Amino acid sequence: MQNLYVVKIGGNVIDNEEFLQKFLADFSKIDDHTILIHGGGKVATQIGEKLGIEAQMVDGRRITDLETLKVVTMVYGGLINKKIVSLLQKNNKNACGFTGADANLIQAHKRPVKTVDYGFVGDVDHVNSSFLSTVLKSNITPILAPLTHDMQGNMLNTNADTIASTVAVAMAQLFKVQLVYCFELKGVLRDFEDKSSVINTINKAEYQDLKEKGIISKGMIPKLDNSFDAIEQGVDSVRICHAEDLLSIVQGITNGTKLIA
Amino acid sequence: MQNLYVVKIGGNVIDNEEFLQKFLADFSKIDDHTILIHGGGKVATQIGEKLGIEAQMVDGRRITDLETLKVVTMVYGGLINKKIVSLLQKNNKNACGFTGADANLIQAHKRPVKTVDYGFVGDVDHVNSSFLSTVLKSNITPILAPLTHDMQGNMLNTNADTIASTVAVAMAQLFKVQLVYCFELKGVLRDFEDKSSVINTINKAEYQDLKEKGIISKGMIPKLDNSFDAIEQGVDSVRICHAEDLLSIVQGITNGTKLIA
Repeated sequence: MQNLYVVKIGGNVIDNEEFLQKFLADFSKIDDHTILIHGGGKVATQIGEKLGIEAQMVDGRRITDLETLKVVTMVYGGLINKKIVSLLQKNNKNACGFTGADANLIQAHKRPVKTVDYGFVGDVDHVNSSFLSTVLKSNITPILAPLTHDMQGNMLNTNADTIASTVAVAMAQLFKVQLVYCFELKGVLRDFEDKSSVINTINKAEYQDLKEKGIISKGMIPKLDNSFDAIEQGVDSVRICHAEDLLSIVQGITNGTKLIA
Repeated sequence: MQNLYVVKIGGNVIDNEEFLQKFLADFSKIDDHTILIHGGGKVATQIGEKLGIEAQMVDGRRITDLETLKVVTMVYGGLINKKIVSLLQKNNKNACGFTGADANLIQAHKRPVKTVDYGFVGDVDHVNSSFLSTVLKSNITPILAPLTHDMQGNMLNTNADTIASTVAVAMAQLFKVQLVYCFELKGVLRDFEDKSSVINTINKAEYQDLKEKGIISKGMIPKLDNSFDAIEQGVDSVRICHAEDLLSIVQGITNGTKLIA
């Protein structure tokens, strides 16, 4: 099977123009097949505020009412996605932006209301791995915005980390998939106050142990839960690293935090 | 050669939710290959105003400064494009949205400054007909936003009529292309005050004559100039019709205005 890097970049990288350009120049140098998933960044909140829409958050997740859905569709699917695509083209990396609605790439359903009504938030049902594979075989890199759809005419807002792991799992049937989460830290930290205390490798038992002891910070838990699920479902490796270390990871020079089975 | 309908819908159809839904339901019923190009509509101006950006127009064309470029990238490439794609998915038409930057579909250069500086407006250099053909052969309908790029990392704003005719010409090497401009009138009118005075067929000599006599209105001239160019460059037919007549056109029941060689 051919190698495929499924790479996710977080909002903090996107918010910094210089970082983003450097990251995309690095990303362009990967010779293997690649898929990039991007988060949203602060731009959606800023533009929403200018349009008079206040961001509502519950447990770190945005509540997506109809007006907020329009803003994230514009900002994630239009502004940020096309900025990344046009900058990759400048780096001679042929890229193509998609939301989950495009080519029915990622079909989802609106999250059922339990204690919280998240609004137009989508939980993923199906990834169209066949079309993604067609795109990759045309030597084109798919750039995925964190948006899905429900086949009923509604766009839905979906967490970018979740899209990354779900896409990685779906593509693992066709490629040897390396999932890489790039963010603003060197990896998963043993001590959040010490940015150099990176855990080099971690298996599920060790993770459970660190989670129970409260050593792994709350924000990392969904990312790591998703990642261990991905490994159990056929993804070859998962790494969590600083965005500036992407090429070192690909070249095997550094590791960030590597999750192992 | 297989038939391919290249259809353009104008902003007035997009601005009316009910019209748009009806139009997309009709469009979904076309069995031949299809490409849809959409204009912008008033939404970009409205959102631009809310964000404190005033639309500047010269001769009916928007001046695209950097802030306006961001707005049209969001609104055309995100909001409108994904609305159309998700509504087509609802109609079981597998559609995929693109700007010119995506898969390097439409490469352009920034229009040189002569008497007017149009800002980030792109004149088309090249259409990637090969990738469009790959998409069509996957039974997916490309939905094109009126945005191009310059391979230097810049998105560019390009007139949707121009994109429609340029794409039609590029695809004419691979398909038997029927170009259809859908808007809010029954066709090209002999008398603008009489909405039923539709010219059924028109050749280039007749067009030149009507243009010289001032009978064809100013707004129609670029559309018709583009259309006659398209026919000379291998497009099988060009029709200009009301959006609600699209299916009648495809079924050969009505004509709108048909341009002939």
